[in-house]
Amino acid sequence: MESITKNAISIEKVQSSKIALVDFDNLAFGSVFSDHMLVCDYRNGAWENPKIVPYGPISLAPAAKIFHYGQSIFEGMKAYKDDTDSIFLFRPKDNHKRFNISASRMSMPELPEEYFMEGLKTLLELDKAWIPQSEGSAMYIRPFMFASGEGFHASPADAYKFMICLAPSGPYFAGKVKVLIEEKYSRSANGGVGYAKTGGNYAGQFHPTQLAKSKGYHQVIWTDDHKHENIEEAGAMNIFVRIGDTLITGPTSDRILDGITRKSVLEVAESEGIKTEVRTITVTEVVAAAKDGSLKEMFGAGTAAVISPIAGFGYRDTDYELQEVENSYAALFKKRITDIQYNRAKDPFGWRVEV
Amino acid sequence: MESITKNAISIEKVQSSKIALVDFDNLAFGSVFSDHMLVCDYRNGAWENPKIVPYGPISLAPAAKIFHYGQSIFEGMKAYKDDTDSIFLFRPKDNHKRFNISASRMSMPELPEEYFMEGLKTLLELDKAWIPQSEGSAMYIRPFMFASGEGFHASPADAYKFMICLAPSGPYFAGKVKVLIEEKYSRSANGGVGYAKTGGNYAGQFHPTQLAKSKGYHQVIWTDDHKHENIEEAGAMNIFVRIGDTLITGPTSDRILDGITRKSVLEVAESEGIKTEVRTITVTEVVAAAKDGSLKEMFGAGTAAVISPIAGFGYRDTDYELQEVENSYAALFKKRITDIQYNRAKDPFGWRVEV
Ligand SMILES: Cc1ncc(COP(=O)(O)O)c(C=O)c1O
Ligand SMILES: Cc1ncc(COP(=O)(O)O)c(C=O)c1O
Repeated sequence: MESITKNAISIEKVQSSKIALVDFDNLAFGSVFSDHMLVCDYRNGAWENPKIVPYGPISLAPAAKIFHYGQSIFEGMKAYKDDTDSIFLFRPKDNHKRFNISASRMSMPELPEEYFMEGLKTLLELDKAWIPQSEGSAMYIRPFMFASGEGFHASPADAYKFMICLAPSGPYFAGKVKVLIEEKYSRSANGGVGYAKTGGNYAGQFHPTQLAKSKGYHQVIWTDDHKHENIEEAGAMNIFVRIGDTLITGPTSDRILDGITRKSVLEVAESEGIKTEVRTITVTEVVAAAKDGSLKEMFGAGTAAVISPIAGFGYRDTDYELQEVENSYAALFKKRITDIQYNRAKDPFGWRVEV
Repeated sequence: MESITKNAISIEKVQSSKIALVDFDNLAFGSVFSDHMLVCDYRNGAWENPKIVPYGPISLAPAAKIFHYGQSIFEGMKAYKDDTDSIFLFRPKDNHKRFNISASRMSMPELPEEYFMEGLKTLLELDKAWIPQSEGSAMYIRPFMFASGEGFHASPADAYKFMICLAPSGPYFAGKVKVLIEEKYSRSANGGVGYAKTGGNYAGQFHPTQLAKSKGYHQVIWTDDHKHENIEEAGAMNIFVRIGDTLITGPTSDRILDGITRKSVLEVAESEGIKTEVRTITVTEVVAAAKDGSLKEMFGAGTAAVISPIAGFGYRDTDYELQEVENSYAALFKKRITDIQYNRAKDPFGWRVEV
């Protein structure tokens, strides 16, 4: 069954909403969940009908492979509400495509587009009142899939669960971040799973990130695992560097997530006539540029934090600070992208999708 | 609370055992589970008292971090029963040590040794009747821990669950295996998590292994992610190569699991006066040795498969077969190690631990 209609999604509503308990003016990131969630099981080689049910615990066998062999993938998206209470998504089909790219790398079944898109829309309409409207807030959307099939044999599971949960969220970072260029640990291998949005890629970052935090940094900048010479990603964000007036970001590869914010930034830059280069960025050139003053900006780009300006970086026991710039690219990209997301501006790119 | 006694483990027994339903003469690997399991929660910075309860589903919030960020670790052990119904473990404290090494790499709390050892012993005594006695069978033991704490923020969870499940199991492989030397995909990065027994390391292997299977191989031989020139691991086993009469295995590193079977093989080899080398093994030398006839044996070593002889390997579209040898090291190690495990021989190394 490769196509579904909204009618095929069964809906069981909560008896009473929890929404009154939520302080929408002080939302943290991803820690409050809306009334409903979507659940869809894959069994015997096929996806069953999706169900929307009250948000609540799920029950799994202790031998479910999610607990043992890490078959899990996810996406991170946002829904935005404008002044007229219309709901918008940002490039949602790109999230669906990437979800399936992740699925196939992790030997998990692909999810038909309709399940993803209709599931999202139906759930968002139902929990529309939960979409925050204050500046910097949005409905964070977490589609995810994991192995529910059982057994201790190290091989793909025979059953999976696809789910969508909604978390009205405030900003991911509270301001500019200080980063540490990592030279010991790495995030991903050539030929590995770095380009997939799979759980293990994140757990592996926690320890190095905690170490960086204990030294006063917020985030790690990942470099290649061979010589730690190429700048690859910033935690769960792609990374951009501005040297002079040129905007540079690394090429995507099997080590790097093909970020939707990253490619949107590149398109906005082009439309603004900003010179961009997609090529390997070396630590050496960034340090040299920091020293000679040509390093104007660095920022991370990702759905959760949108554009996250970097205030400075640490490298080999030296800290390099970035000065404030007047015509900040980071500020420009953030404004242009969020204006499209919140339906405050025209969308010449065709990115916005009304629910 | 860093120490517990057996009395601190609460026990809720099943009302009626499922053991009569199990065909102990035809056990698969890791697909039947004993009557009970151990569960121990970590909350507010401390481990609570372990509980033994009937094996059955566990309930988790959809936002539990295990589903999103891959914080999961495990161990693989076996319990053996001899003719007098005594129960034995093999080097169990080494599993506990490695469990904590994995935990700290994945930013998870360490588990005190007593929780691990007393938990194992209490559970095994309770489900003693489930330990299979037929040749090649054993009780496979799966201690594991995962993030039960909630939230979509990509950071370590604040709550964890440690569990032990028991699976009476037959052999992992049904005979000699054909392997493929992998040159595109890799298992782990320098500075990554390869040395930790964490779920993501296994999920990442499934796709390449499925591709190898579709070409008629059983298993992938992992090489370094940079040049694919060094032979590192064989799926969930460490790898040994015998060239002439010298036994060679790669050194452990942050990419390679420090296998308990591997180090036991090295100790047995030494006690047998076999010349061993722990050093980088290159694909080039193995292929050359296969061509000139000096490649006598290759085998994997790991708890699940014990010693798994390799019948041949594929490399760059050529298949290399290994001839049967008379004085097989693989057969010798398998006999010496399993004789100790099943209490059929003296244990000069002090590896066997009676429960
Ligand atoms: C590792 C990693 N890099 C980059 C990104 C940015 O991708 P996107 O812009 O699609 O959110 C993410 C996800 O947010 C990520 O997890
Ligand atoms: C990746 C990997 N290598 C090697 C081994 C062998 O380790 P051990 O002999 O301790 O079982 C295992 C686990 O069985 C493993 O998962």
